[in-house]
Amino acid sequence: MRRWNAEREALAQRIAAGSAFARGKIVAAADAGALIEAVIRPFDRVCLEGDNQKQADLLARALAGVDPAKIHDLHMVQSGVVLPEHLDVFETGVAKKLDYAYSGPQAGRIAKMLFGGKIELGAVHTYLELFARYFIDLTPNVALVAAVSADRDGNLYTGPNTEDTPTVIEATAFKSGVVIAQVNEVVDKLPRVDIPGDRVHFVVEAKKPFYVEPLFTRDPGAITETQILTAMLAIKGIYEPYGVKRLNHGIGFNTAAIELLLPTFAERLGLKGKICTRFALNPHPTLIPAIESGWVEQIHCFGSEVGMDDYIEARPDIFFTGPDGSLRSNRAFCQTAGLYACDMFIGATLQIDLAGNSSTVTASRIAGFGGAPNMGSDARGRRHPAEPWLKAGREADPDGLPALRRGRKLVVQIGETFGEGNAPTFVEKLDALALAEKLGLELAPVMIYADDVTHIVTEEGIANLLLCRDKDEREQAVRGVAGYTEVGRGRDAKMVQRLRERGIIKRPEDLGINVLDVDRSLLAARSIKDLARWSGGLYRPPSKFRNW
Amino acid sequence: MRRWNAEREALAQRIAAGSAFARGKIVAAADAGALIEAVIRPFDRVCLEGDNQKQADLLARALAGVDPAKIHDLHMVQSGVVLPEHLDVFETGVAKKLDYAYSGPQAGRIAKMLFGGKIELGAVHTYLELFARYFIDLTPNVALVAAVSADRDGNLYTGPNTEDTPTVIEATAFKSGVVIAQVNEVVDKLPRVDIPGDRVHFVVEAKKPFYVEPLFTRDPGAITETQILTAMLAIKGIYEPYGVKRLNHGIGFNTAAIELLLPTFAERLGLKGKICTRFALNPHPTLIPAIESGWVEQIHCFGSEVGMDDYIEARPDIFFTGPDGSLRSNRAFCQTAGLYACDMFIGATLQIDLAGNSSTVTASRIAGFGGAPNMGSDARGRRHPAEPWLKAGREADPDGLPALRRGRKLVVQIGETFGEGNAPTFVEKLDALALAEKLGLELAPVMIYADDVTHIVTEEGIANLLLCRDKDEREQAVRGVAGYTEVGRGRDAKMVQRLRERGIIKRPEDLGINVLDVDRSLLAARSIKDLARWSGGLYRPPSKFRNW
Repeated sequence: MRRWNAEREALAQRIAAGSAFARGKIVAAADAGALIEAVIRPFDRVCLEGDNQKQADLLARALAGVDPAKIHDLHMVQSGVVLPEHLDVFETGVAKKLDYAYSGPQAGRIAKMLFGGKIELGAVHTYLELFARYFIDLTPNVALVAAVSADRDGNLYTGPNTEDTPTVIEATAFKSGVVIAQVNEVVDKLPRVDIPGDRVHFVVEAKKPFYVEPLFTRDPGAITETQILTAMLAIKGIYEPYGVKRLNHGIGFNTAAIELLLPTFAERLGLKGKICTRFALNPHPTLIPAIESGWVEQIHCFGSEVGMDDYIEARPDIFFTGPDGSLRSNRAFCQTAGLYACDMFIGATLQIDLAGNSSTVTASRIAGFGGAPNMGSDARGRRHPAEPWLKAGREADPDGLPALRRGRKLVVQIGETFGEGNAPTFVEKLDALALAEKLGLELAPVMIYADDVTHIVTEEGIANLLLCRDKDEREQAVRGVAGYTEVGRGRDAKMVQRLRERGIIKRPEDLGINVLDVDRSLLAARSIKDLARWSGGLYRPPSKFRNW
Repeated sequence: MRRWNAEREALAQRIAAGSAFARGKIVAAADAGALIEAVIRPFDRVCLEGDNQKQADLLARALAGVDPAKIHDLHMVQSGVVLPEHLDVFETGVAKKLDYAYSGPQAGRIAKMLFGGKIELGAVHTYLELFARYFIDLTPNVALVAAVSADRDGNLYTGPNTEDTPTVIEATAFKSGVVIAQVNEVVDKLPRVDIPGDRVHFVVEAKKPFYVEPLFTRDPGAITETQILTAMLAIKGIYEPYGVKRLNHGIGFNTAAIELLLPTFAERLGLKGKICTRFALNPHPTLIPAIESGWVEQIHCFGSEVGMDDYIEARPDIFFTGPDGSLRSNRAFCQTAGLYACDMFIGATLQIDLAGNSSTVTASRIAGFGGAPNMGSDARGRRHPAEPWLKAGREADPDGLPALRRGRKLVVQIGETFGEGNAPTFVEKLDALALAEKLGLELAPVMIYADDVTHIVTEEGIANLLLCRDKDEREQAVRGVAGYTEVGRGRDAKMVQRLRERGIIKRPEDLGINVLDVDRSLLAARSIKDLARWSGGLYRPPSKFRNW
């Protein structure tokens, strides 16, 4: 006779074992390690919550401290590899296999550990893809999550940083997995219920806030004139002609510059209400001037941003907020919105090849993908029209039967021809390919594939890849905006000139932009202090961004 | 001075107006209409919950009964147009504009009303796309949802049919919208909490269960030998060579036949454990024999299926279930799983054209899309490898640089060459194109586009479109499996023969299948009663499927 409730029985045993360290569901911070040792079993799939923002840091430390003789060979299935502890568990043998999405701050160390064979790599995913697998073949046996507070029944309040928590818990709790939440405090009554208590088995009282990285804060003071130029090109050459209203902005100074040019440069172009009204976006501080100037109608967020909570709470017409007044973020829904309800994704990258493939992986750093592959891909399941999407579709396929012609998501890569450390952004061959060879990966870690990219913007101009009709045109369009990089210098000048005549390449002067007019005074805010001022004092920048 | 809390103030007013008909949050069924008239305002965006399964039927009737002088010009943003009341509101002027995803049972009437100009059509979406827009530009002002029970704080228990409810409520409640839930009963303590009460403003006690359509029940007694043949072809010619483990099956007798051949035909081929282990799928009764035979490891569900609840509850190792023991379904996550974590989508359609575009829209019926466009599209954001996906990618692009070659989702259309009423499945031009012209749509309602379809299976054989190298080969591959339809008879017999020699077309004999062996005795269950027997009496078919 086959048993059909092995998982349920295991759950009961795990809860019984963990209960030795709990009063009801509540566990003292000092007992977190003992709790984890009691609940987790070797070879378990474990989701340790952490993405590019919030971190279940106390539980990460506790897991890193367990006895590898008792707990070993775990398969970690988690959004972010961000804290040192996320990799320590692989050094000690507590964990063995890894499936993840983002590893920005640990990009160097994770690369070394992969080369050294310390980690058995499953795959590097985009967030929504990893969430999808939680329901099919990477369902966690144990989830270690973070919330602001809990009541004694285990109901959780995540506050503004809801992020991945509901998704992780849904996949775990409803498949007989154990959910352990660290909370800043246990209270009698929660400001709102983000997670019902019957999905939460243990609550560890951390007595201090979980760690959150202010990843989406860009100091306007650090925005260069070159970045302002690329932002002006994007607004005049892409946002305006396509009429992009629903969009996502990646992290970076180029898109921060776009946000700060909306109430100035874009407003003078008469674009208010015609572009940038609805976002799938974290609460970027650099968007405050545009919001305050009445540009923005609605924003749905993946997570919150450090220092933005009071501002968001005072702007409920713009943001999604709960009955308690504070932000309700949700990474799974915001990624879905970015995929299916946005007409543009614009972001930066580290390397672009001659076809337009791009990657943030370099020879020594594996940063992961985050949300870019999802939002920076053409959603082929999309069935609703919108003018930017239809126009892009017409450009890509001018001769197609109109009724059978699909639209296209605008996927824009924006950056300077030379990036950090003067490394060229344009390369003949992505470092990602060498890495794939070295690690024996079946797929090179390409962030956005060439066939999804529609435009490349640099200080030299815009290349519209939708209008390229063959591989050669495409290569010359890429070379034609690659400036003084080797790739740029390798251009066929005559062909680039013809591409320019056909409007495939646009220079600043083709768009009526005088490079001499580019000036930091165009930015609606020129410092973090300016942003705080725009917000009426509601934005409270983290101390590392304050110099006053 | 701009106000930033207009929505919050409107919410307070709406709740105050509705509270006249409530005790606390509880409203009597007889007062549902008065409550709705008090809460909804003209031109509101309203989500009336209903998909292809569960329906907020009491609230649908109440909305259809409001005074159009008071409530008019609503913009309905909802998954399903299924009940007559969903269209009645457009006849009376209560509603004006419609954005939706599925309209199977109302396909004829909705077509007539669109032709008659009674409905202003936004777009026909796939479910996940509509959910995405709830967070960007179709956020409901009011959501009318359905649950099994509520407590006096408004906490909701959705039971096995959770489906769209968490998504609809999240988008509405956290953007200052009003949430009204009909429940079968108000209780003191819920079996589990599916929706926290602070997101629910009013609870209408219906005193009887909401309507659920048993849409995924297929009587094995109605499966034809032709359908069994297509199922055998699919298993032998696609499931086996690609090794498809993670997948979704559409609704229909062909895929039901596949499910019923797993413990018989497929088991004899030695495929147990090698195919069909993990599904994004509703609890199809026809999957019971495969589950009982140990074929299936895990299933995540969009919704439940009438009569399957006790069976699911007794099989928690397979299904996602709550602490109360019953199924936890979730359409948004299951669609996400179907998009990103499955290697195959296989389903039926009404019409396929020469390129491979398909649609369920005919001249007089607009059935909507449901989940097919999402799950039947290549997820270009996907970054994790799996053998079926990699093999499909190699077939599509044999000369590509391996490290830069993406995999491909297997998207299979299966059906007989002649469908219901002897209408040919294969056509020169989809009716959807004529419809788009007639209604002035910017996009024809194509369900799955040619460039996403990888295989077509009919009783004549399998066409592998991945292996076609140009438009002509593709057309002849389609014609080559189109049987005696006009499209099939129009084939270039020599070219079809060459395609067969190259393995692009496979006939039953090419796969070692003798058409004379095809017999209903191959089905693991040949009646609904057989399914009930396989389940040990746990599956309780709805009365319309019982003849004993």
